Amino acid sequence: MQSIEIQHTDLLKGYNEVRSQTQFLCDPLEIEDFVVQPVMDVSPLKWHLGHTTWFFENFILVPNMLDYKAFHPKYAYLFNSYYISAGDRWSRENRGQLTRPTVKEVFEYRSYVDEHMKQFLENQEIAETLAEVLILGMNHEQQHQELFLYDIKRILGDNPLFPVYRKEEKPVKQVNSEMEWLNIDEGIYEIGHEGNGFHFDNEEGRHKVFLHEFQICSSLITNGEYLKFIEDGGYRNHMLWLSEAWDWVNENEVKAPRYWNQEDGGEWGHYTLHGYEQIKEEDPVCHISFYEADAFARWRGCRLPTEQEWEVACKMYSPNVLADANFVENKHFKAIQTSDFDFFGNLWEWTSSPYVSYPYYNPPEGALGEYNGKFMVNQMVLRGGSFGTPRNHIRATYRNFFHPHLRWMFSGIRLAKYI
Amino acid sequence: MQSIEIQHTDLLKGYNEVRSQTQFLCDPLEIEDFVVQPVMDVSPLKWHLGHTTWFFENFILVPNMLDYKAFHPKYAYLFNSYYISAGDRWSRENRGQLTRPTVKEVFEYRSYVDEHMKQFLENQEIAETLAEVLILGMNHEQQHQELFLYDIKRILGDNPLFPVYRKEEKPVKQVNSEMEWLNIDEGIYEIGHEGNGFHFDNEEGRHKVFLHEFQICSSLITNGEYLKFIEDGGYRNHMLWLSEAWDWVNENEVKAPRYWNQEDGGEWGHYTLHGYEQIKEEDPVCHISFYEADAFARWRGCRLPTEQEWEVACKMYSPNVLADANFVENKHFKAIQTSDFDFFGNLWEWTSSPYVSYPYYNPPEGALGEYNGKFMVNQMVLRGGSFGTPRNHIRATYRNFFHPHLRWMFSGIRLAKYI
Amino acid sequence: MQSIEIQHTDLLKGYNEVRSQTQFLCDPLEIEDFVVQPVMDVSPLKWHLGHTTWFFENFILVPNMLDYKAFHPKYAYLFNSYYISAGDRWSRENRGQLTRPTVKEVFEYRSYVDEHMKQFLENQEIAETLAEVLILGMNHEQQHQELFLYDIKRILGDNPLFPVYRKEEKPVKQVNSEMEWLNIDEGIYEIGHEGNGFHFDNEEGRHKVFLHEFQICSSLITNGEYLKFIEDGGYRNHMLWLSEAWDWVNENEVKAPRYWNQEDGGEWGHYTLHGYEQIKEEDPVCHISFYEADAFARWRGCRLPTEQEWEVACKMYSPNVLADANFVENKHFKAIQTSDFDFFGNLWEWTSSPYVSYPYYNPPEGALGEYNGKFMVNQMVLRGGSFGTPRNHIRATYRNFFHPHLRWMFSGIRLAKYI
Amino acid sequence: MQSIEIQHTDLLKGYNEVRSQTQFLCDPLEIEDFVVQPVMDVSPLKWHLGHTTWFFENFILVPNMLDYKAFHPKYAYLFNSYYISAGDRWSRENRGQLTRPTVKEVFEYRSYVDEHMKQFLENQEIAETLAEVLILGMNHEQQHQELFLYDIKRILGDNPLFPVYRKEEKPVKQVNSEMEWLNIDEGIYEIGHEGNGFHFDNEEGRHKVFLHEFQICSSLITNGEYLKFIEDGGYRNHMLWLSEAWDWVNENEVKAPRYWNQEDGGEWGHYTLHGYEQIKEEDPVCHISFYEADAFARWRGCRLPTEQEWEVACKMYSPNVLADANFVENKHFKAIQTSDFDFFGNLWEWTSSPYVSYPYYNPPEGALGEYNGKFMVNQMVLRGGSFGTPRNHIRATYRNFFHPHLRWMFSGIRLAKYI
Repeated sequence: MQSIEIQHTDLLKGYNEVRSQTQFLCDPLEIEDFVVQPVMDVSPLKWHLGHTTWFFENFILVPNMLDYKAFHPKYAYLFNSYYISAGDRWSRENRGQLTRPTVKEVFEYRSYVDEHMKQFLENQEIAETLAEVLILGMNHEQQHQELFLYDIKRILGDNPLFPVYRKEEKPVKQVNSEMEWLNIDEGIYEIGHEGNGFHFDNEEGRHKVFLHEFQICSSLITNGEYLKFIEDGGYRNHMLWLSEAWDWVNENEVKAPRYWNQEDGGEWGHYTLHGYEQIKEEDPVCHISFYEADAFARWRGCRLPTEQEWEVACKMYSPNVLADANFVENKHFKAIQTSDFDFFGNLWEWTSSPYVSYPYYNPPEGALGEYNGKFMVNQMVLRGGSFGTPRNHIRATYRNFFHPHLRWMFSGIRLAKYI
Repeated sequence: MQSIEIQHTDLLKGYNEVRSQTQFLCDPLEIEDFVVQPVMDVSPLKWHLGHTTWFFENFILVPNMLDYKAFHPKYAYLFNSYYISAGDRWSRENRGQLTRPTVKEVFEYRSYVDEHMKQFLENQEIAETLAEVLILGMNHEQQHQELFLYDIKRILGDNPLFPVYRKEEKPVKQVNSEMEWLNIDEGIYEIGHEGNGFHFDNEEGRHKVFLHEFQICSSLITNGEYLKFIEDGGYRNHMLWLSEAWDWVNENEVKAPRYWNQEDGGEWGHYTLHGYEQIKEEDPVCHISFYEADAFARWRGCRLPTEQEWEVACKMYSPNVLADANFVENKHFKAIQTSDFDFFGNLWEWTSSPYVSYPYYNPPEGALGEYNGKFMVNQMVLRGGSFGTPRNHIRATYRNFFHPHLRWMFSGIRLAKYI
Repeated sequence: MQSIEIQHTDLLKGYNEVRSQTQFLCDPLEIEDFVVQPVMDVSPLKWHLGHTTWFFENFILVPNMLDYKAFHPKYAYLFNSYYISAGDRWSRENRGQLTRPTVKEVFEYRSYVDEHMKQFLENQEIAETLAEVLILGMNHEQQHQELFLYDIKRILGDNPLFPVYRKEEKPVKQVNSEMEWLNIDEGIYEIGHEGNGFHFDNEEGRHKVFLHEFQICSSLITNGEYLKFIEDGGYRNHMLWLSEAWDWVNENEVKAPRYWNQEDGGEWGHYTLHGYEQIKEEDPVCHISFYEADAFARWRGCRLPTEQEWEVACKMYSPNVLADANFVENKHFKAIQTSDFDFFGNLWEWTSSPYVSYPYYNPPEGALGEYNGKFMVNQMVLRGGSFGTPRNHIRATYRNFFHPHLRWMFSGIRLAKYI
Repeated sequence: MQSIEIQHTDLLKGYNEVRSQTQFLCDPLEIEDFVVQPVMDVSPLKWHLGHTTWFFENFILVPNMLDYKAFHPKYAYLFNSYYISAGDRWSRENRGQLTRPTVKEVFEYRSYVDEHMKQFLENQEIAETLAEVLILGMNHEQQHQELFLYDIKRILGDNPLFPVYRKEEKPVKQVNSEMEWLNIDEGIYEIGHEGNGFHFDNEEGRHKVFLHEFQICSSLITNGEYLKFIEDGGYRNHMLWLSEAWDWVNENEVKAPRYWNQEDGGEWGHYTLHGYEQIKEEDPVCHISFYEADAFARWRGCRLPTEQEWEVACKMYSPNVLADANFVENKHFKAIQTSDFDFFGNLWEWTSSPYVSYPYYNPPEGALGEYNGKFMVNQMVLRGGSFGTPRNHIRATYRNFFHPHLRWMFSGIRLAKYI
C-alpha cells in the first residue's frame, strides 16, 4: 500500500464503478438467495453486501467525516468480519441465521453510505494515507465480488433444481490450446511488488530468490486431461496423494472435481452458473483442491510451480498484460484481454508454496493489519486471477491463498518441472 | 382415526379455514424469514408451507384424483419430511440450504393444490377412509401452524435486532391466578380417545389404569415462582437435576428459560413475538425443558403429573371445554375460551410420562403408519395445548411429545403430588 | 433399603464373599487388560476394583471408623464415579488415560480396606442404618462384577487376536427349549419390593397397577429365531424400526447382534468369553439393543412386555426361585438353579418400559441419593438378571436400566402379546 | 539414502546398540504404562516396541532371509503404522484399545527378531541397498525412541499422581547463557545433505538458495523470558497471534506452555520426567507450539528463522559438532557434547518454514516412499534435535516436522531478525 497519486474525481469514479459492479452481480438473484449459509466458508450474499459497505463506513466515514452518523448502531456488530481490533462481531458460523436486516434494508445501507461517500469525496481534501485506505476498500469489495460468485455457485449448485444464475455467462476459453513448455533459466530473481500501483501488504517486501532452471506449462490442464486421471484410477491410488489428502479423499468420498456428476450413461456433467451442462473436454478443469492439483501433477510426473517460479514466468511471458488496468473496465462478463500465454484471468492456479510472509514484511498498524498477515499458516498460494476476478484487480505479484482442501473457488492446475 | 360422519361441504370449508389460517400466520413476515434453519429442529418456514401442501398432494390428489398432475416433479423429494415409505427425501439438516423454490413459488404450489382440492372435493364422492386422511391432513397442517410459531420465534428471537412478529399479539393469561390443589381419588380410570371425533392414532387403545390418590395444581407455575427457583440457586444445585439434565445445564450454561436475558441492572427480560419486554411475574413461565420442569418440581417438593393423571384431572375439572371444537373458530390470536381450571390452551404441560404406545396400539398401514408410532422412545409427553395451538385442535386425550432437552416450543409446568 | 436383621459375623462373611468373588473374576487376566477404556461406557477394570473399594472406604470407614486413615489422599478423586455430593472426580471419559496407580497398587488398596473393614466389623456395634449401607456396598460391588464381565468382553472381543478369558466358561442354557405362551388375567396387581430383604431404592414405592389380559413367552428368543429375522431383511426394513433406531442402524451399519461376524462362507460366528466360535441356534440371542429387541418383536407381530407385566408373570410362574438367595452361593461360573420357566439368570430381558420412578419414590438423603434416582430419563428397564449376575443378587422386583442403543451387556428378548 | 560403505560387524553392532537403547528407555516403566493412548498423536509404548521391530521384520527379514517365518501372522496388521503399500493396518486411533499382545509378548517378538537379525547379518552378504534399508530401520527406531519419551511424558504428566519416570534425568542446560546475535551475510547458499553419511530422503535435493542478510540468536529463549511474555498478557493479546493460533488459544484456553501449572501462590511449576518441580528461569522454555513460538517472536519484535537460515547459521557457527556421530555413543542420559553456539541437542527449534519438498526431491520406490514425502503439507519444520534425540541421530540438515498446534514434543524457540 505504497503512495499513489490519484485525483479526487478518480477516486469517486472508481468507487462508483466498484459499487455498481456489485449491484450488477446481484441483479439476477432472488431475495431468498441472499440469506443462506450452507457451510461456514460461504457467507450469505447479503452479508457480503453489508460487510463491504461497513468497511467504507468504519474505516473512512466514521473516523474522518465530521458529523457522520452510522446508519444503524448494530450494523458494525453484524457486518465486521474478522477484525478483532474493530470490536465485537456476530459469529461467522451463524451468519446464515440472520433474516434481518432484510435485503432491502442492506441495500438502503449501501445507498446511505454511497451518498455519504460522495459528499465526503466531493467536499474534502483526501490525504494520501486516507486515499490508500479508500483504494484498499475498493479492492476489498472486488475480492468480495469474486467470493460472491463462488458463494452463488455453492448456493445454487447444490440445489436439486439447478437454478440458472445468468444465461449469457460465458467463462473465457484458453487462448492457447496447444500446450508448450516454457523455459526459465537458473538465477537470482526479484519477487514482490514494485512501483506505485495498488497492491496488498502481503506483496510487499520485494526480495531476491534463487531459482533453479525449470519449465512451466503455457496452458492450464483441461477437463479432458483430468478425465484421463480419473479414468486411470487417480482417486483410488494412494501413492499419488499426500497423507492428509488421502484422508480427505476417503472421508469425503471424492471422485471428481466439485460440481461434477457422473450420469447414468457414464457421461460427466457439471453445474455452471448458466445451468447444468455436459463437461467440455477442451475447457480448463475447475474447482480443484490443492490436494487434487498436487496428486494430478504427481500422476503426470510433474509438479506444481512455486509461487516464485510462477511470478517470474508470468513477468517473462506475459509482460504487457493488464498494464492499463484501472477502475473503468471492470464489467464481469465482458470479453477478457488475455496475454499470449494466458497467465491471467482463467482460473486461480495452485502453486506448491505455502502462504508465508515475505522477508521484511510488516503489516500495517491497527485493524487493517489483520487484513492479510494473520492468515499466514496452513494455506497455499494461488496465482493469476480467474474469470471471476475483476480485470483491474489482477497483478503478476498478487497472492491469493486458500486452505488445501477447499475447491468452491475457481481454481485450476498449471504444471511445472525441472529439466 | 375412527369413522366420522362428515359432509363434503364441511370438508372443503374446514380445509379452506385451515389453509387460510396458515396464510394468516405468514402475513407479517419478510421473504428472508422463510428461508433459514438455525438448528435442525427448526425448519425453514417455506418448508412448512410446502410440506403441508405436499401432504394433501401426495396422500389425497395423486392417488385419488384422475388426471392430477403433480405441480413439480421434484417437490415430493423436497417436501417429504420423514415418510420413508413415501420415497426419497432431501435431508432434514440441509433444508435451510435451499433458496429455491422461492417463497412465491411455494405459494403458487399452495394455490395449485388448493384449486385442485376444491375441484376434487366438489366433484367427487369422498369415501369415509379418504375423508379421514383429509382430516388428518388438516390436523397435520394445524400442527405445523404451531411449529411455525415456534420456528418464527426461534428465528427472530436470537437476532440481535429483536424484530417484532406481530405487535398486537397477546398470549392469554391464566384465568385463575389463585393456585388450588385439586383432588383425585384412587381407582381405575379409562384413558385414551373415545367416540367419533378426530384423534391421532397414538390416542387410540382406550384402556384402564389404576391411579393412586393424588393432587394436581389448578394453575401453571408463573414467572414469579420460577424466578424464586433461579434466585435460590436452582440451576447450580446438582441435587435437583437428573444426571443427563445436569450435563445439559452445564454444557449449555443454562441459567434461565429460553429467550430470557438478565440485563445489567439484574432485571430479567425476554423476547416475545411482539418484541422484547420485561418479564411479567404473573404470567406462566414458558420455554421450559422437561429437565427444568422436573428440577423445579423437585425443588418445590412436588412432582410432575403422569399423562394419565393429567388426562383424568382434565376430564374431571374441565369437562365441557372445547366441546364445540370445529374447523370454524380457529384464528390464532382471538380470545380463547378457557375452562374454570385452565387445563387447555395456555402452554403445553410437561408430564412425567415417557412417550410410549398405549396397549393395543396399532399404527395404520403404509406411510401414514410413520406419522406417530416411530417416535415412541426417548421423548416425554406434554398435554393441554398452548396459546399457539388452534382451538379446535385441542383435546383432553391429545398426546404431544418432545425430547426432554427441547424448549423452543410453548411449554410450561403444572405440579402434582401424592397426599 | 428397609431395615433388615443381620449379624455382624454374617456381614463380614458376606463382605468377604463378595470381595473374593471379584478376585475370582480377575484371576485369568493380564495386567494390560485392567488398564484400557475402549469407549466411555466401558471402565478400565482396575477402576472397577478401586471404585468398589472406595465405596466402602468412603461410606463406611471414613465416616465411622475412629482413626481410620485413607489409603491415599488422591484415591477419592480417582475412584469416585458420579457422586457429585462426594466431591470432585477424575472425568469418566478419561479413566483409560491413567496408568497409575498400578494394578498391584489397586490390589494393595483393596487389601488395606479389607483389613480395616474386618477390624471395623469385628470390633464395632453396627447400627442398622450402617448395616444397610454396608449391604448396599456389597450389592454395589456385585453390580460392578457384572459390568466387569461386560467390559472384559468388550476389551477382549474387539481385539483381532480374540483372546480367551476363561476356557471353562459355560453360559447357561435355557431349560425349556419348547416355547409356550403363559397367560395372565386382567386385574389390579401390586408392583415393587416388599419385605425385609435387600433391595434398591428404585424398587420401593410398592403400588398397584391395572394390567389387561396378556400372554408372555416362557422362553427367550434364540439365535436361530433371530437369524430368521436377519435373513428376512429385518435390518433393512425401516417399517420395523423406531425412527431413532433406524438412524442408529444406519449410522453404525448394524447388521447383526454385537460380536457377531459373518464369515466368508456365510456362516455366523461370535466372540465369547471362552473364545471365538460358531453361533449355536438353540442358545438365546444375546447382546441385543432395545432398538433391536423392539424391531424383532414388531417383525414377529408381538411386543415386549412392560416391566409390570414381566414382574407379575415372574412372580406367578417362578414363585420359589432364589428364595434362598444369600451371600454364600455366588461363584460366577457355577451351575445355576433355574426355575421352571426361566425368568432369571439367563439374560437381562428388555421391557417396553422407560425407566421412571415408582409412585411415592423418595431417594435417600446425601450422596447415596444419587445412586439410582438421577438416571430416570431416556433409559429402558431390563429385568431378570443374566448368567453374569451373582445368583443372590437377583430378584423379581430388580430393575436394571440401560440406554436403548447399548448392547455390550448380556441382554436378550422375551416376547409378550395381548390375546 | 546414498551409498555408504559399512562392514557387517558394524551393522550388527549398530543394530544392537539401537535396540538396547530402546530397552534402556523401558526399564523404569510399569506394565500399565505401555498400554494406553491418551490422544491419537500418542501411541501406546508397547506399540512403539512392536512397530520398530516390525520394520526390521517386514523390510529386512521377510523379503531377504530364506525360510524366515514371521513371529505371528497378525503382527504385521497390528504394527504397521501408515504404510498403505505394506498392507492393511489396525487403525491408529484405536491402538490404545489393544491389551494383547501383552508387553511380555512384544518383548518376545523383539527377541525373536533380534535373534534372526543376528543370524541374518552374520551369515549373509549384505548388499549396499539392503544395508541402507537396515540403517534406515535403525534411524527409524531412534526416531521412535524420542517419540517414546514424548509419549511417556504425556502419559505420566497428566496423571494427578505425577509419577516419576527417572529420578536421575538431567536435561541439558544451555552452554551460553549470554545471548548474542550472530550475523549471516546475504548471498547464495547450498542447502540439503551432502556426502555419504546417512540422511533421510527429505534432506536430499541439494540446492541453492539466496538469503538476505540476517541475524540469529546464539541461544534459546528461556523460561524467564517466556514468563515475561505471559505476564505482559501475551496470551490475551490477539494482535500477536495468527488467526488459527488465536482460535487454538481460545478453544483450548491456553495460558502457558504444556505441562505448566500456576499454583495457588502464583508460582509456576511443571511436570518433568523426574517429577513435578518449580520452573527454573534460566532453562530454555520447552513444550511450545509453533503458534506460541510465532506469537512470542512477534511480541519481541523478531521472527523465527527459516529452515534455510537455520541450516546456514548452524553450519557456520557449529561446524565441527557431532562430526564423529556414530552408533556407539548413544546412551540417552549421558552428558551431551555441545557446540560453542548450541545449535544441537537442546530442543527442537521451530522455524518459520512450512514442510515442503526440496527441489529435485524424489521419494524412494515402494512402501518406503511413504516414509517422509506424504506428510509435506500443513506442517512446520523444526531443526536441531533435542535432549531426547540420540546423539548420533542429529545433523545440520535434519528436517523434523510437526503440525503447528502440537507441543507434546521437546520444542523451543530461537529468534532471528533482519538487520
